[in-house]
Amino acid sequence: MRIAQIAPIVERVPPKKYGGTERMVSALTEELVKRGHDVTLFATGDSVTKAKLSFVHEIALREAKLENIYGLNTWTMYHVGEAYARQNDFDIIHDHTGYIGLPTANIAQTPVVITMHGNFNEDVRPIFEALRHPHIACISKAQASVLNLRDYSVVYNGLPMEHYPFSEEHEGYLLYVGRISLEKGTHNAIEVAHKLDLPLIIAAKLDEPDRKYYLKHVKPYLNEKIKWIGEVDEAERNHLMSKALCFLHLVTWNEPFGLTMIEAMACGCPVVAYDKGSIPEVIKDRKTGFVVKDASSLLDAVTHIDRIRRIDCREHALENFSASKMTDRYEELYHKILKRV
Amino acid sequence: MRIAQIAPIVERVPPKKYGGTERMVSALTEELVKRGHDVTLFATGDSVTKAKLSFVHEIALREAKLENIYGLNTWTMYHVGEAYARQNDFDIIHDHTGYIGLPTANIAQTPVVITMHGNFNEDVRPIFEALRHPHIACISKAQASVLNLRDYSVVYNGLPMEHYPFSEEHEGYLLYVGRISLEKGTHNAIEVAHKLDLPLIIAAKLDEPDRKYYLKHVKPYLNEKIKWIGEVDEAERNHLMSKALCFLHLVTWNEPFGLTMIEAMACGCPVVAYDKGSIPEVIKDRKTGFVVKDASSLLDAVTHIDRIRRIDCREHALENFSASKMTDRYEELYHKILKRV
Repeated sequence: MRIAQIAPIVERVPPKKYGGTERMVSALTEELVKRGHDVTLFATGDSVTKAKLSFVHEIALREAKLENIYGLNTWTMYHVGEAYARQNDFDIIHDHTGYIGLPTANIAQTPVVITMHGNFNEDVRPIFEALRHPHIACISKAQASVLNLRDYSVVYNGLPMEHYPFSEEHEGYLLYVGRISLEKGTHNAIEVAHKLDLPLIIAAKLDEPDRKYYLKHVKPYLNEKIKWIGEVDEAERNHLMSKALCFLHLVTWNEPFGLTMIEAMACGCPVVAYDKGSIPEVIKDRKTGFVVKDASSLLDAVTHIDRIRRIDCREHALENFSASKMTDRYEELYHKILKRV
Repeated sequence: MRIAQIAPIVERVPPKKYGGTERMVSALTEELVKRGHDVTLFATGDSVTKAKLSFVHEIALREAKLENIYGLNTWTMYHVGEAYARQNDFDIIHDHTGYIGLPTANIAQTPVVITMHGNFNEDVRPIFEALRHPHIACISKAQASVLNLRDYSVVYNGLPMEHYPFSEEHEGYLLYVGRISLEKGTHNAIEVAHKLDLPLIIAAKLDEPDRKYYLKHVKPYLNEKIKWIGEVDEAERNHLMSKALCFLHLVTWNEPFGLTMIEAMACGCPVVAYDKGSIPEVIKDRKTGFVVKDASSLLDAVTHIDRIRRIDCREHALENFSASKMTDRYEELYHKILKRV
């Protein structure tokens, strides 16, 4: 099959550090190439891929330090325009730029799948509901639930996790990763550690807009047991995950998916999280962690985390959220759409 | 002919105050309706038109006080997407959203004319040079000169100026209108008034980013003869134009067109401006004003402004820059493009 993958261009594919969408696009693209498809990846010129790479901008927009890298800018429009200009070269176009590509996708003659990587908030919901020509892929049922569309698919994200480190043994600490911020619930993790008198490792970056939150809700509680070790690379983070007692993913918003949860599970680390957004779809409650309703059941869950078998976490992640599984689902979706045409 | 006009949605069509593009789109749309075309205007819901109005957003984005109203935002994408989704309803689509609509226009099956209302700066030039499917209309030869395209048209802007007031007699003052700012050259106008000891009326708004410029380069020079009267409405502005000795349009950048120059001329007011951008195409040098190279020829020009016949200014504006003339040119362009298909 001749497939175009249109990535965002904020980060290269795969991203050097952050960039969940670009990581997922990379996983899907490489797996499709491995399966013998003729894949063209529209991304920045510094991307690393076995697919044919097509680009209008040499390096990731973030590294180019351009303004307005998120959302819309002339480079992103140029990138999207170039990809659709070549629509006749492809059997299917898979667009990851969200509403940016949507007006063009809507009149494309080659069938288009758009995977929506963010939430369908009030800003973007109307445009997705109005321009119904492309097929919309959602990354969780929770994300899709607000959308008034008859025809869409849910395809969970996947990552190439076969080589993630796994450990049967843990070293007894709680783990928090990502970014220190209110939405990510750093304060919730600290409260659990404090109340249960357990060590907590916070492996996370701090962005300038979150400094006030950090000073008020994080810094005063740091001590010998509750440690902030800053940003870590992927290898170090995976190692921390494989040895943690429990991964605390106590976000305070309706996250559409949550890649770090599947990564923690792949490393054998049970996850405890509030019942919000995609979480009950990603964690198998009582099998790979606990989905909790309130602060007291949260403490209960962490206290009884040893009931979760670490190998169950890994198996759940690899069975449901591997790059290979995700690619199976997208291949099936591509075939289904092409049959309709 | 079934014609779609896609306006920007920052302002309604026509705009309540500022909004050169929306004024021009309004003039063209109403004139096309008058000539019997079946015109659909894609604009905000508060727009006033005799065409069929199609909208996704009720009121002008500026009035809705949304963030990021210029350039790209989800409403603008939705607006553009809706218009192109209906491409089969039209013989021709005339898009005024610049690079925003370009990726979609590039794969549209209905022929598209895009009028570029801004400059082709380094940000947008590459995308216009790459996505060559739509026909590009430029608003001056100067604007087009940087563009590496074989196929484009120059269509000057026009406004419905038949009822603009005209006066053979002037009241001896110099006039500056628009916005107080460095690029608009308010300081140049003040210098002329000062050196020639002539009265100057500054009918202009002051935006926050220009306050520092105002305090340093404008405020210290205001007095009985050099007066800042703030923002005025269109009727008041036209009256001022009809009675001014001379209109000073001393911009310091390469403006792509310059609507106020044609309005001043329509009121019988000669224009003096530096030889930049579109200016020598709009002013007929020595006939409807003076196109000057430097500060000394500028003073010379204003000193001898009485050599310009006020009726020549009006005639030049009405002959070349009326809504009717602009519509003639666009109608001709639409026919030419449709013949090719």
